[in-house]
Amino acid sequence: MELVLIGSGNIATVLGKSFYERGISIKQVYSQNIIHAQQLANQIGAIAIDQLSAISPQADAYIMAVSDHAIAPIAASLKLGNQLLVHTAGSVSQDVLSQASSNYGVFWPMKMIRKGQEGMGSVQIVIDGSSNSNKSYLSNLARLIGAQVAFANNDQREKLHLMAVVCSNFTNHLYHLAADYCKKNNLDFSLLYSIISQTAAGIQGEDPATTQAGPAFRGDIATMEKHLMLLKEEPVLLDFYREFSKSIQDLNRDEGK
Amino acid sequence: MELVLIGSGNIATVLGKSFYERGISIKQVYSQNIIHAQQLANQIGAIAIDQLSAISPQADAYIMAVSDHAIAPIAASLKLGNQLLVHTAGSVSQDVLSQASSNYGVFWPMKMIRKGQEGMGSVQIVIDGSSNSNKSYLSNLARLIGAQVAFANNDQREKLHLMAVVCSNFTNHLYHLAADYCKKNNLDFSLLYSIISQTAAGIQGEDPATTQAGPAFRGDIATMEKHLMLLKEEPVLLDFYREFSKSIQDLNRDEGK
Repeated sequence: MELVLIGSGNIATVLGKSFYERGISIKQVYSQNIIHAQQLANQIGAIAIDQLSAISPQADAYIMAVSDHAIAPIAASLKLGNQLLVHTAGSVSQDVLSQASSNYGVFWPMKMIRKGQEGMGSVQIVIDGSSNSNKSYLSNLARLIGAQVAFANNDQREKLHLMAVVCSNFTNHLYHLAADYCKKNNLDFSLLYSIISQTAAGIQGEDPATTQAGPAFRGDIATMEKHLMLLKEEPVLLDFYREFSKSIQDLNRDEGK
Repeated sequence: MELVLIGSGNIATVLGKSFYERGISIKQVYSQNIIHAQQLANQIGAIAIDQLSAISPQADAYIMAVSDHAIAPIAASLKLGNQLLVHTAGSVSQDVLSQASSNYGVFWPMKMIRKGQEGMGSVQIVIDGSSNSNKSYLSNLARLIGAQVAFANNDQREKLHLMAVVCSNFTNHLYHLAADYCKKNNLDFSLLYSIISQTAAGIQGEDPATTQAGPAFRGDIATMEKHLMLLKEEPVLLDFYREFSKSIQDLNRDEGK
């Protein structure tokens, strides 16, 4: 099994190292910046290249881990015949790869990935492919690096990506606002760690409808009014407080609490 | 050490059992519903009562675990002299207890607690008291049941409670909306578990400013527009998407990303 990595950023780095550690050979690492390509290539026994035309035509699969907006232009410059080409993006159709190869697919790690992290850790890899044999090849590749495999077509994957934004980026933003509020008020934000973990763990295997709590859920007007007072100098949190409280109450009503 | 429990709901039940398991004697359980009092009393070797006037005047401490709005009226009916009386609420001043006793305080488990759960698990108990000796007594009590102890005065505790609402109830609501969206679109919500856990774990020991990601953070207009299109039939998620995206971008700008 011999791969080519197109890209040298967070996902390319962590995937590349994971492959390398499991004995999967990486032939080349492409980046338009040869220094970046070389940095990653050095770590995974690959050859660094900065020209798409230098990409070997004979690898088993080409993993394109680049920014979403770079996927189509790079694919337009590749001619891979029927070699397997995949991208690693949640919200980009696999069909943009069809101009580069007759075999293509998606290999999307559903995780925030940073260069410095050690290995992939526990991760779902969401897979699609232009054929069943592509999907099967990609599933094996994902399992080889210890990932759990899920399948999703373009439409399903876009929606999953959107929900990942809601469940991850939006919650992180709430943590960010809360941490800033704690800093400003000389409170130790780390006191909130355990309730944050508990909330995230609480919905695993449970419908989140059954784990909802708090003043809006209880209809505790007195506490909500106190909270709005405490936020009177905090317009952003104040707006979120109002919108969440209303939405929690509306959803309870709709679901016939 | 001998305690009296005032209340028989989620917190009274889980605290009562934790005390009992650590060999701390619970003399009485009060509830205005004698059946509820009896159910809990049976499990922790206590006597059930439904009259505040029947509360023993000689316990070491009285733990009032009742709804926020019931704390002041119950306190107004208690005459405990200088016996230690505490409530377990995040957002109620300890001073409402001063009419019932000259010794009072707060013993607030910063956790969502449900009757059925086994023990307190990992929990922060936030403590306040009308004297240093009260605070010290309550800290020992918290440590005896395996909790971590934090101190906060009324003002700090109210703000922590507000941030717990933001970090726990609001994030749970996002999970709830996402789970409903997945159900409606035949997607498996459990695929999001690992990214949810990762996000919650990612901020422990890190400033959440450094763990932010996603299209709004990157300024990826194309993906945001695609997401808004996907949400055109989902007014609640659409509003949240707009508000979060704007707020994430504003905060990045303010913090000089």
